[in-house]
Amino acid sequence: MSGAAKAFRAGIVGGTGYTGVELLRLLVNHPVVEVARITSRSEAGTAVADMFPSLRGHLDLEFTVPDVAQLSECDVVFFATPHNVAMRMMPELMAAGVRVVDLSADFRLRDADLWSRWYGEPHIAPELLAQAVYGLPEINREKIKDAQLVACPGCYPTAVQLGFLPLLEDSLIDPMQLIANAASGASGGGRQAKIPMLLAEAGDNFNAYGASGHRHLPEIEQGLADIANDPVAVTFVPHLLPMIRGIHATLYAPLRDSTLSLADIQALFEERYANEPFVDVMPAGSHPQTRYVKGANYCRIALHRPLDRDVIVVLSVIDNLVKGASGQAVQNMNIMLGLPERAGLEGAALLP
Amino acid sequence: MSGAAKAFRAGIVGGTGYTGVELLRLLVNHPVVEVARITSRSEAGTAVADMFPSLRGHLDLEFTVPDVAQLSECDVVFFATPHNVAMRMMPELMAAGVRVVDLSADFRLRDADLWSRWYGEPHIAPELLAQAVYGLPEINREKIKDAQLVACPGCYPTAVQLGFLPLLEDSLIDPMQLIANAASGASGGGRQAKIPMLLAEAGDNFNAYGASGHRHLPEIEQGLADIANDPVAVTFVPHLLPMIRGIHATLYAPLRDSTLSLADIQALFEERYANEPFVDVMPAGSHPQTRYVKGANYCRIALHRPLDRDVIVVLSVIDNLVKGASGQAVQNMNIMLGLPERAGLEGAALLP
Amino acid sequence: MSGAAKAFRAGIVGGTGYTGVELLRLLVNHPVVEVARITSRSEAGTAVADMFPSLRGHLDLEFTVPDVAQLSECDVVFFATPHNVAMRMMPELMAAGVRVVDLSADFRLRDADLWSRWYGEPHIAPELLAQAVYGLPEINREKIKDAQLVACPGCYPTAVQLGFLPLLEDSLIDPMQLIANAASGASGGGRQAKIPMLLAEAGDNFNAYGASGHRHLPEIEQGLADIANDPVAVTFVPHLLPMIRGIHATLYAPLRDSTLSLADIQALFEERYANEPFVDVMPAGSHPQTRYVKGANYCRIALHRPLDRDVIVVLSVIDNLVKGASGQAVQNMNIMLGLPERAGLEGAALLP
Amino acid sequence: MSGAAKAFRAGIVGGTGYTGVELLRLLVNHPVVEVARITSRSEAGTAVADMFPSLRGHLDLEFTVPDVAQLSECDVVFFATPHNVAMRMMPELMAAGVRVVDLSADFRLRDADLWSRWYGEPHIAPELLAQAVYGLPEINREKIKDAQLVACPGCYPTAVQLGFLPLLEDSLIDPMQLIANAASGASGGGRQAKIPMLLAEAGDNFNAYGASGHRHLPEIEQGLADIANDPVAVTFVPHLLPMIRGIHATLYAPLRDSTLSLADIQALFEERYANEPFVDVMPAGSHPQTRYVKGANYCRIALHRPLDRDVIVVLSVIDNLVKGASGQAVQNMNIMLGLPERAGLEGAALLP
Repeated sequence: MSGAAKAFRAGIVGGTGYTGVELLRLLVNHPVVEVARITSRSEAGTAVADMFPSLRGHLDLEFTVPDVAQLSECDVVFFATPHNVAMRMMPELMAAGVRVVDLSADFRLRDADLWSRWYGEPHIAPELLAQAVYGLPEINREKIKDAQLVACPGCYPTAVQLGFLPLLEDSLIDPMQLIANAASGASGGGRQAKIPMLLAEAGDNFNAYGASGHRHLPEIEQGLADIANDPVAVTFVPHLLPMIRGIHATLYAPLRDSTLSLADIQALFEERYANEPFVDVMPAGSHPQTRYVKGANYCRIALHRPLDRDVIVVLSVIDNLVKGASGQAVQNMNIMLGLPERAGLEGAALLP
Repeated sequence: MSGAAKAFRAGIVGGTGYTGVELLRLLVNHPVVEVARITSRSEAGTAVADMFPSLRGHLDLEFTVPDVAQLSECDVVFFATPHNVAMRMMPELMAAGVRVVDLSADFRLRDADLWSRWYGEPHIAPELLAQAVYGLPEINREKIKDAQLVACPGCYPTAVQLGFLPLLEDSLIDPMQLIANAASGASGGGRQAKIPMLLAEAGDNFNAYGASGHRHLPEIEQGLADIANDPVAVTFVPHLLPMIRGIHATLYAPLRDSTLSLADIQALFEERYANEPFVDVMPAGSHPQTRYVKGANYCRIALHRPLDRDVIVVLSVIDNLVKGASGQAVQNMNIMLGLPERAGLEGAALLP
Repeated sequence: MSGAAKAFRAGIVGGTGYTGVELLRLLVNHPVVEVARITSRSEAGTAVADMFPSLRGHLDLEFTVPDVAQLSECDVVFFATPHNVAMRMMPELMAAGVRVVDLSADFRLRDADLWSRWYGEPHIAPELLAQAVYGLPEINREKIKDAQLVACPGCYPTAVQLGFLPLLEDSLIDPMQLIANAASGASGGGRQAKIPMLLAEAGDNFNAYGASGHRHLPEIEQGLADIANDPVAVTFVPHLLPMIRGIHATLYAPLRDSTLSLADIQALFEERYANEPFVDVMPAGSHPQTRYVKGANYCRIALHRPLDRDVIVVLSVIDNLVKGASGQAVQNMNIMLGLPERAGLEGAALLP
Repeated sequence: MSGAAKAFRAGIVGGTGYTGVELLRLLVNHPVVEVARITSRSEAGTAVADMFPSLRGHLDLEFTVPDVAQLSECDVVFFATPHNVAMRMMPELMAAGVRVVDLSADFRLRDADLWSRWYGEPHIAPELLAQAVYGLPEINREKIKDAQLVACPGCYPTAVQLGFLPLLEDSLIDPMQLIANAASGASGGGRQAKIPMLLAEAGDNFNAYGASGHRHLPEIEQGLADIANDPVAVTFVPHLLPMIRGIHATLYAPLRDSTLSLADIQALFEERYANEPFVDVMPAGSHPQTRYVKGANYCRIALHRPLDRDVIVVLSVIDNLVKGASGQAVQNMNIMLGLPERAGLEGAALLP
């Protein structure tokens, strides 16, 4: 809690959830950005550090009621809200010229009708969808620099897209037969009181969910189709892990050209991600563990070609709250503000 | 520890591992089978209940050095050993006329060369492979009745085969494009001191392993090929869960005939397993959880057809130590001895 | 789900919580008692096995609205409800002559005023308190035989009382300086949607709660004072473990007579509990683990005298849902119905 | 991995354990100290980031064989070894004028005979014991500034001493009747292959250990006696938690003067720790959680006085690998080198 004012001011709308507290954890040590405002209707007046004692000694701020005028004084505003909140405030904020990083699902899909089908309600600000830049820096870094509104990718879509990306860019796999089997820690379910997410229910247990269709699927398919410049079809099955943080995606794709060796594909991945500060291509045959990225902003990836048959398996891990949410949001903010991309994101993963 | 002698006597070779102690847990309450002998070279002379205090009050027995003459007095002998132990004692035991249920990998593959390639050493008793009956009662019940040597399936192979079985029997899927993504609790790794299996390593973590090729793959492919009466190719990726018990398999297969509805396939599964005491076909669209079978001998299965596309997803859960090992071994023993198949296996799963 | 009718019929009021489903798990395999009725206002009409799929294949029953007339047809009725439910229905049930085992807190304290102070509301049926027998069989077995209403002890009070009991009966320790430090798995918090009990909150974490005063304290002090025939003062601090089942109590007491050896005290414990089917005194110097009783009805106890100083440490473990709740309830029922005390409670603990 | 050389060079002896990798995690982001050398006999030649992939992208260093000449070029050397290693190399290092922070137990006790009794072997460098400064900055900050050899406190002793400290300094409690009930995550057991520390053994489980006497007891009593200026007697029972990081101590002490209010004592604690950067006195009646300090260098403390009786309960949490080991070591190094005490230790706890 040093007193020196920092150069940039950030606001956070909806600071009582897990992506909110993770934004705070990252930003309290950001060299040039300070959290100036954090809102919560239900907790207005509460000291943030009373709610999250992990921040005692790091942050001296209270939750306030969200107010567009006050938020407009910030250099950047994050939405760490459930879907259907950001799009209600967005028109006014955009009109006020504020730059926004939205961690929610509201502006990830370009097609308002598709959004409605998966979220079960009409999209309120469809006119802004075209302005939203999809915030996966590994694809859209240049557009993010000038964007006023960045829609941060979902956690599963981040792990899945970064895993398939080089294969699809170079048309090495059949885009219509992709399988994305993924598993997430329980923090992905949000900080909401729900019986199935109790420790006594979800601890010491494992199961798939949304196997017949999950909201992250259209986002994954939109992103991969952009990359492939072709339609894609993904069978996506998410699972719930008995732990708190981490996403592991196991991706399967039929190889189009069986003469390509695993070493060739490995080289392709290494080249594609050589300059990416937060994508780590591990040696072929490695098995990335979720703890290799716990609390850190990396996506670590490894390739396998089982028994040298014509199926490529990509293993991809992220921390769902960091590269899958708040870390990626900070990365996007850094790009938007012209800051070093690693600012505030230097921390190594917590292992063990 | 009631005094009344039971009708049948069982021996257990290698009783200090997890499948050994699980056999004991199940057998101490078996109505007509008692554990007469349990061996361990390293723990000979130790009271079993000193090593496993969970059995205090249930069992008054010491570990002894394995001895064929003594084991031959048993009605049935279980091998709860790592691979490469059972096959050393088997010729003598078979010659002595003992009936054996082998929980290890030694007699699961019919092809000794294939076994050698995956286990890295020669098979010592290849002449016995033809006598071994693969102990998946849902396929081989009649053969098991008369077998002298039953080779219990591996844990992953049990979950995977029961999930694909009705689809392959009726040729509904392309057998050359199967994907088996599976995850296991840490007890599957055995009771051996290994750093990667420490709580401080494997807890709060998730990763794939053996993604380039795992020893259970040839067993899975042998079993599925028998079922399909055709060659099969499976991409199989196992994962390690931060919990103790449970296997969850997520199976993906391209549907051959897209006019078949999910309801049709559901009906097929229900019919196929209608008389199976330990296979439970849950309603289509369900998500079986590993805790639904914790400590119990069931395999619970559910079907999905995501977005009505032409990929079938089968979810299959077992307890790796029960239906995936010791429970299935007891089930096989019951069949071999002409006992009710559910004897000693009546317990419901421990939930929560 | 065998068809043969059993000799006794049990009803369960409030079957959707953890003690309810645990009663079901134990009773579906009880040799002579069947669950004839299970109630839930909110889930009336739902099949029990739809809510708890672990019971598929074991139970073919639906939840019904609680109804005194229907419950009165049962030989015994269990209350597996939060406090303040049983006492509302109790007068009518008692008048109907039904025998009741109440797992809730409503009839544990003899003093209605004390109850009111700790539970924050008036006691509705104070006239029945005198009829309630405190259901700790190790103390009150004879009274339980003839009781119409048995109040099952709380989970912490069971572990704490059984640990201190022989020391207090023989006046070996100073009853005014007792310390009971205890920890419980999360199932003790009940099956209710509360943010602090989410996996993402209570997993991978440990903390004390209620350290300034917890509702189980007056029950503990009432029970220990009965045993000691003297006032007692206990400092009791409960803690929440990042796991589902199990209570571990670490009890500290100043020894009055320093000439008594640990061996003397060990002999005393062994003698006191020699005929108790569910109390296991482990060798002195042992460290009982909660997994030694997971899913089983035992209390396992061990004694220490650190550095031979004049403080006795007693370690006491139970499964909070079995000996700490539903198992003890079945044990009480067996005593009330004149059945063998171990009926339905023969299962060994699930280890690993 | 920025290229700019840092002002100070650190060496780490024994870098393959948990305190070693935690030192690395903290130091790779230290503003002015770089890790110049890290040793391991067994892993010499291995890249550190191959062994701990969480450090990929942060550290480009290989393990080397320990060599006094090379270590002597460092400004500070850490020992992150089991006991009985540091004392073998210490005479030579001390003679070479190197400043050392020893995380092991070798120099914590001033009395070589006491050390021998608890560790079962003779102390090899008893002549250096008098030079060792006990590295608890909250007590010995001034001495640490000038020390050549700092013996970092054990994890339990840190949590216990900081909890009792203000009470003993002011003689508010009876020093002969102290109880320290504590629990630790599994990383406290070290990165060694031991069956009882397997996930399948220690996960989903809780137990006491060393209840008859644990090696941290003499260290605790030595430290508390120094604080109290009087003999102390502590009954100390440690427990093993089914999680990786975190220590929780629940301390009990009889209050000498019953007219002192909890508010008085709270004020005393707040005053005593007002200027301590890493001790946080939470509001009276709080329940510190281990996750409030996960990955961070704090000790968070809260006070209770149950039912206003004359027993004070202090709750004290640390991360065993940070304030209980490597973080405290860095704090000591900062003090020794005249750096800001928080340098490299600014990170907030990882929550959730």
